[in-house]
Amino acid sequence: MKISSEDLEDLALGASLLGTGGGGDPYIGRLITRSTLSEYGSPAILEVADLDDAAAVYSIAGYGAPSVQIEKLINGDEVDFALMKLEEFTGRKADALLPAEIGGGNSLLPVMLAARRGLPVINGDAMGRAFPELQMNSLSITGIKATPLVVVDEHLNSAIIEAADDKAAEEFTRSVAIKMGLRVFIACFPMRGCDVKKAAIPGTLKIALEIGRTIRKGRKSGDVISSLFDYLVSSNYYNKPRVLFNGKIVEVYRETSDGFSSGLCKLVDLDGTGKAAEICFQNENLVARVAGKITATVPDLICILDCETGVPILTPDLRYGQRVTVIGLNAPPQLCSPEGLSAFGPQCFGIDEPYISLA
Amino acid sequence: MKISSEDLEDLALGASLLGTGGGGDPYIGRLITRSTLSEYGSPAILEVADLDDAAAVYSIAGYGAPSVQIEKLINGDEVDFALMKLEEFTGRKADALLPAEIGGGNSLLPVMLAARRGLPVINGDAMGRAFPELQMNSLSITGIKATPLVVVDEHLNSAIIEAADDKAAEEFTRSVAIKMGLRVFIACFPMRGCDVKKAAIPGTLKIALEIGRTIRKGRKSGDVISSLFDYLVSSNYYNKPRVLFNGKIVEVYRETSDGFSSGLCKLVDLDGTGKAAEICFQNENLVARVAGKITATVPDLICILDCETGVPILTPDLRYGQRVTVIGLNAPPQLCSPEGLSAFGPQCFGIDEPYISLA
Repeated sequence: MKISSEDLEDLALGASLLGTGGGGDPYIGRLITRSTLSEYGSPAILEVADLDDAAAVYSIAGYGAPSVQIEKLINGDEVDFALMKLEEFTGRKADALLPAEIGGGNSLLPVMLAARRGLPVINGDAMGRAFPELQMNSLSITGIKATPLVVVDEHLNSAIIEAADDKAAEEFTRSVAIKMGLRVFIACFPMRGCDVKKAAIPGTLKIALEIGRTIRKGRKSGDVISSLFDYLVSSNYYNKPRVLFNGKIVEVYRETSDGFSSGLCKLVDLDGTGKAAEICFQNENLVARVAGKITATVPDLICILDCETGVPILTPDLRYGQRVTVIGLNAPPQLCSPEGLSAFGPQCFGIDEPYISLA
Repeated sequence: MKISSEDLEDLALGASLLGTGGGGDPYIGRLITRSTLSEYGSPAILEVADLDDAAAVYSIAGYGAPSVQIEKLINGDEVDFALMKLEEFTGRKADALLPAEIGGGNSLLPVMLAARRGLPVINGDAMGRAFPELQMNSLSITGIKATPLVVVDEHLNSAIIEAADDKAAEEFTRSVAIKMGLRVFIACFPMRGCDVKKAAIPGTLKIALEIGRTIRKGRKSGDVISSLFDYLVSSNYYNKPRVLFNGKIVEVYRETSDGFSSGLCKLVDLDGTGKAAEICFQNENLVARVAGKITATVPDLICILDCETGVPILTPDLRYGQRVTVIGLNAPPQLCSPEGLSAFGPQCFGIDEPYISLA
């Protein structure tokens, strides 16, 4: 199977839902990927199970703050340069690319680079969603290291980071990324096919495609949320979806600091009861509170959708007055292990609440 | 000529004067260097003129804030590791080491590593003093790049920086260094012997040795400042020394922020006239004001010496009540070109005053 140019819109749409508000704007990723596919052709999709154990696999991703990437556009050379630097450093050419995060624009960048390079892109990723920090993924929690990691800016300035652990690598990479202007690209996780089989989350690329397709088709049905839920309950992950809140956005607090886009979105319901909800985010949506009570937390997915069209709204696009449906999706089980929760559970974001699973 | 263990005290003393308050504590550099020399023997000193044009030369240095390095001690492995990473990256083993800055502890680190590696250390440096930022040196202003540059911490975490210019390299390196705890080591300026001949400041290692020797011998003479000036007027650089102020320190403001030790030292004279002076510093002393009027600025050297012993006082050691002589030394001419002044003149430190040469 190949990803066609026509699939890109669906992939971007599905990925923006799995991005839970972050992961970068898929619109821009879609434009550069479409133009790359028209020049280089479509890349093959490789199933995790079909990977050669000895294959050299790398991940590439945009890195920084979502609110910045809308202003500093990508041209593709930076991403290619990042991978090339990492290949030079490890001495091994890539055989395939694994999306680091299926959420947001980072679902599309590996498709773009795979097309440019004539490489297959793996049907899977390392998050099953989007996360704001480097060590927050299914590879790191099983001991596969993000480093050596190359970080590159639009001027092709670069740093090759090697660190004892991925939390330290995140700190070093973030600090350089801030100086580089918070829209940078990384090549990371030099690994083997057997590592991908052990620790990646298989199948998420195709699920993102299907989610996008379902929303696109359901848009005009008047009940897109039902169509979406019908698909999700039949899929391998995210199969216990629920509506957390229906309402109107009344306030959005937002700041770009410490290298992240952080903030809080306040909502009230539309039926006049005055019931309120709030979603706090750090690049991605982290916690949903309804009437003061936590109803969902990271690593489960909290997605804010336009209530009419089902189109996901990214955190930089949240605005006063939007009518939205907030949904919660259970995270892939790989993320909900004790190791996972200690790497990206609520406590990792300074939230002193236990994780209450939606599964 | 070799640098003996006995020379180290003199070199440290002379280097602490040329450090103009910064450059790192030579005491700690001296301890590690003495212990290294007792294990590996003394390194040869190589004159700049005797360098092979094709020789592979690197610089190594401690990097960060002087106030931190007194607490996070060096063991030598980090420095060796930094050079090794850079050699691996460039594919070329070092033939000699050029001190990046002759001021402070960074005069001793290359001696230490040269001994460990059995390499010669070059009689010269790239500053003729100490400067707080990477791009502030005689190599960068002639177009020799600091990058690829390796920065390493005490855990041997590392980053290899490549940047379009050394100002950008400074920003990236500083940001990583802050996350690494502000006591890190860099290997940088991969160059050839011909580059050193073109752009280094020759002879400064031996001048530092002689300055230290002169202060040591003059300490008990009761007029160490005169002995020092007698030596300096006969040397190739710093040959227009002058006393800027004699007095007592009455206040010291200090903060470690943005990766530097910055502050202000206020003095009054001892003869009861109430005449006041102040020295502002960013790692190194930058500007001397006497009775409100600027009497010396960077890149000329402003050194605060104990008025009895002539021993230089580093910025972290400035204290209320110290009786001091503040001297000004004309910088080596290589630093006073238009390129030099635009890279490390007063304006580069946010001081809106013209450079008034002491030469």
